[in-house]
Amino acid sequence: MREKDWETERIKKQFAFLLELDKEKEVMRQTPLHDNSRMEDDAEHAWHMAVMALVLSEYANEDIDVLHTVSMCLVHDLVEIYAGDTYAYDEEGKKSQKTRETAAEEKLFSMLPDDQAAKFKALFEEFDARETPESKFANAMDNVQPSMLNNASGGTSWVENGVRLSQILNRNSKTAEGSETLWNYSYSNFILPHVEHGEIRDDLGAGKPAKP
Amino acid sequence: MREKDWETERIKKQFAFLLELDKEKEVMRQTPLHDNSRMEDDAEHAWHMAVMALVLSEYANEDIDVLHTVSMCLVHDLVEIYAGDTYAYDEEGKKSQKTRETAAEEKLFSMLPDDQAAKFKALFEEFDARETPESKFANAMDNVQPSMLNNASGGTSWVENGVRLSQILNRNSKTAEGSETLWNYSYSNFILPHVEHGEIRDDLGAGKPAKP
Repeated sequence: MREKDWETERIKKQFAFLLELDKEKEVMRQTPLHDNSRMEDDAEHAWHMAVMALVLSEYANEDIDVLHTVSMCLVHDLVEIYAGDTYAYDEEGKKSQKTRETAAEEKLFSMLPDDQAAKFKALFEEFDARETPESKFANAMDNVQPSMLNNASGGTSWVENGVRLSQILNRNSKTAEGSETLWNYSYSNFILPHVEHGEIRDDLGAGKPAKP
Repeated sequence: MREKDWETERIKKQFAFLLELDKEKEVMRQTPLHDNSRMEDDAEHAWHMAVMALVLSEYANEDIDVLHTVSMCLVHDLVEIYAGDTYAYDEEGKKSQKTRETAAEEKLFSMLPDDQAAKFKALFEEFDARETPESKFANAMDNVQPSMLNNASGGTSWVENGVRLSQILNRNSKTAEGSETLWNYSYSNFILPHVEHGEIRDDLGAGKPAKP
């Protein structure tokens, strides 16, 4: 008797993976919603980044394949289901981040059929390496999206975590590689006002008026 | 003096739209997370559908453009920011759904520059019309995703809303047009067991054993 095509091992593995992904909605970030009502979770963040990539792709420094970029946005945080979210400015957590995420990557993506496991691992690793135009742009979305929300919510997340300007500039050093335009927009509109108003600790003197 | 390219009206409109989208995370649905810990929101649902489309596109009845399908998944519920979520089996709410959503569509998408407003409206309307292969597949994701979660969480949402099998079959009448395979999988694995166990009200006699 021929196996029904909805009862294959392949489709069972795919649905087991897709159900496991539901846990992404329970990984909380350090970025508040625009109205400061609560923190956002990883699934919401990935969705927001993906829509941003659709709307803003015209500003990529180099031509990008939009599907490839959006796919990276959608899956870039999946390993946090097992590895947890590492806050951008948690220097201790970042030391073990790579080891934790590599183990998580293996565990999660091996739930898929081999061909798709390889494809999703490659997407995740491409995002992490920040070398291709698509990866650079997806990483820009990963930085601009929380800056937009931090600004909208009054910068409280920066205050609570005692974030310094040098840390933000360091984290964003690659944002301009994805899009100079979006980095300039984000710096001017989302970051600099909070240096001037003190929510971001100005350890570089950027918020001081120029000498006469 | 040349306008800086990060200070155009175009980019300001795009970011105003993208910030407004944050409200999508506050539109709650009637579908619980897999562990029944809380209901999911629209942004999480759209993200989950988009990843499902990436993983499951091979089962589409017809060849589909995956970027186009994923884009529809990402934006298909945006109008609910103003129009609210209409539960799939809320027959009263569905009477006014179209009017509310058309007004919301105009309000939301007109925040974008004209070319993108037209593009996003077209995407939303294409999803709604269920005529193209991509729209049919995106609609299949919109139905299979909550069935997967309702099953995982024990069918409590079906019980609490007194859902009847005929309502589910009616709602899913188009799912098979997107993917016969995924409809068969969903019916066999996510729906039928809950007819047999009583979480779905069996008004069609589907869960009864065949006569000897």
